[in-house]
Amino acid sequence: MNKQGNMIRVAADEMQNQFYRILLNTGFRKEKAEALAIVFTQSSLDGIYTHGVNRFSRFINYTNKGFIKPGAEPSLKSKNNGLEQWDGNLGPGILNAIASTGQSMKLADEYGIGCVALSNTNHWMRGGAYGWQAAMSGYVFIGFTNTIANMPAYGAIDARLGNNPLVIGLPYNDTAIILDMAMSQYSFGSMELSAMKDEMLAVYGGYDKEGSLTKDPKAIIESRRPLPIGYWKGAGLSLSLDLLVTILSAGLSTHEISKRNIEYGLSQVFISINIKNLPNHSSIAALVNNIINDYKQSVPGNEETVITYPGERVLKNRKQNSENGIPVLKSVWEDILSLTV
Amino acid sequence: MNKQGNMIRVAADEMQNQFYRILLNTGFRKEKAEALAIVFTQSSLDGIYTHGVNRFSRFINYTNKGFIKPGAEPSLKSKNNGLEQWDGNLGPGILNAIASTGQSMKLADEYGIGCVALSNTNHWMRGGAYGWQAAMSGYVFIGFTNTIANMPAYGAIDARLGNNPLVIGLPYNDTAIILDMAMSQYSFGSMELSAMKDEMLAVYGGYDKEGSLTKDPKAIIESRRPLPIGYWKGAGLSLSLDLLVTILSAGLSTHEISKRNIEYGLSQVFISINIKNLPNHSSIAALVNNIINDYKQSVPGNEETVITYPGERVLKNRKQNSENGIPVLKSVWEDILSLTV
Repeated sequence: MNKQGNMIRVAADEMQNQFYRILLNTGFRKEKAEALAIVFTQSSLDGIYTHGVNRFSRFINYTNKGFIKPGAEPSLKSKNNGLEQWDGNLGPGILNAIASTGQSMKLADEYGIGCVALSNTNHWMRGGAYGWQAAMSGYVFIGFTNTIANMPAYGAIDARLGNNPLVIGLPYNDTAIILDMAMSQYSFGSMELSAMKDEMLAVYGGYDKEGSLTKDPKAIIESRRPLPIGYWKGAGLSLSLDLLVTILSAGLSTHEISKRNIEYGLSQVFISINIKNLPNHSSIAALVNNIINDYKQSVPGNEETVITYPGERVLKNRKQNSENGIPVLKSVWEDILSLTV
Repeated sequence: MNKQGNMIRVAADEMQNQFYRILLNTGFRKEKAEALAIVFTQSSLDGIYTHGVNRFSRFINYTNKGFIKPGAEPSLKSKNNGLEQWDGNLGPGILNAIASTGQSMKLADEYGIGCVALSNTNHWMRGGAYGWQAAMSGYVFIGFTNTIANMPAYGAIDARLGNNPLVIGLPYNDTAIILDMAMSQYSFGSMELSAMKDEMLAVYGGYDKEGSLTKDPKAIIESRRPLPIGYWKGAGLSLSLDLLVTILSAGLSTHEISKRNIEYGLSQVFISINIKNLPNHSSIAALVNNIINDYKQSVPGNEETVITYPGERVLKNRKQNSENGIPVLKSVWEDILSLTV
């Protein structure tokens, strides 16, 4: 472990081994513990710390409290050709999402496009993981989830919307383009990080208690009024995604989840599209490269600007963290190690 | 016609009759002219003037110049069960989109979920129209289109992204919830309107020539730097939607369209989901009402705030404009009448 202030660096192998050991101790069977350890580590390696290493303790905690059932498997509720409803049976969100993504890919093989609507599941952690899963297997992917209420409607004070992440993925040469975006301008996780570092946000992230737009993360954490992306637009998109996951899965809405106070029993949608059988399949890579190459020729507004496509920074993080270890707050890592008792 | 300053009000019937007559004169056959006149009028009635009456002259102009082929019909390019590719053959975007939405609904009837990817089409005008079409027939709908480049990447100066509208629709009691949002915070159409009225925008709409965020529509029109919703997020979503429509339809990307300088030959995706055969179909209306009722209980931040769901204001506009006539700038209506020669 390399130390740098309060941050240490943990090698991916070591992290994965620790996760695996703790998961076994928490009651997960071997294959499930391994699959979970891999995803939590990969997300951290890719720089999505908020839904990787920084979220691991809470995941164990929720399992210990019974909100996540370590042995549960998703079960089929209904099938209409390429459209299926599954019950997540409160199993770990990551494993339910991997299974649902895989199933949507199978449906796409059979029907061209496949949709799995999943109820009664848990937080899928890093949504981008399922975009990567589908895209690296050669599919176009669209997925979205609801969350507990954590964002007010545009112009409102009280949180009745989730930040409901949306994921879009597609293959790009030997890698993938993966959009993974929540409907709030910043997550509370990233605002807490900025607050801890005494930094201001780059753009307005929400309102202070007086109802003024602010870049001060502490003021937004206090008011609980994060800003939807694009104001009324992100609020409308968030509401629409919640409506879709709820009615398609016959699951709980953000409103119903929020009554529980603890975020569990979520609703999600996974859509895969089979592009391997399209007559233009052989030219798709060229189309994608053509678009990205043009995008990359954008003229930056200033010298610090770097024009990146969705998912691009992941590759850089992955390389750096593979070489140098995954950066973790010392206290976070110590908390995790203390879970092994 | 009632006059109010430079605005007049035109009865919907009169507007539709004028449109119909002009479309016949422009070379559209009866049924096509009628279908187009209905959509242009309905969009105006619903308050989407920028893609209704205010866009009609340009539509006729593009047809006269040959960018839009009045007699063209979409043709099937490929089929893989619930996934089809169609060629719009440069027909009118509205009619191609109506046909594609209808076809995606048919595919959903057969396969649970249906996807039509359409290349070589034209501006669909008001995207929400297809959300309404599918939702009022009882389907969940997701659709998106690319456009000519009209928005820079986040942090960039030159426009290489389209504002690529996204539409989500679902049934809601006897009406529908319809999200219809472009990826720019404001359209140039609405900024031009604000500029004409000497009004500032409610929130940042883009950058001025010096690269500072501004609410001044004139400064943004001058710089050609509108802001993506949510900054990097809306830019990433715009790019992702362009990638999807291009590879799924084997059509032109925003980059390729932009080389033409005139916006024609667009790529679009239409997805319908059959909720009528879901085992929870009878409880869907209750789920939707539950979500909307909770959302409507949001506590407004101030007295002026009205909490609306996507598409709600459309109903109010529709009622008002049905009663009072559709508001149109006198000069715009005179331009339209002059097209009849």
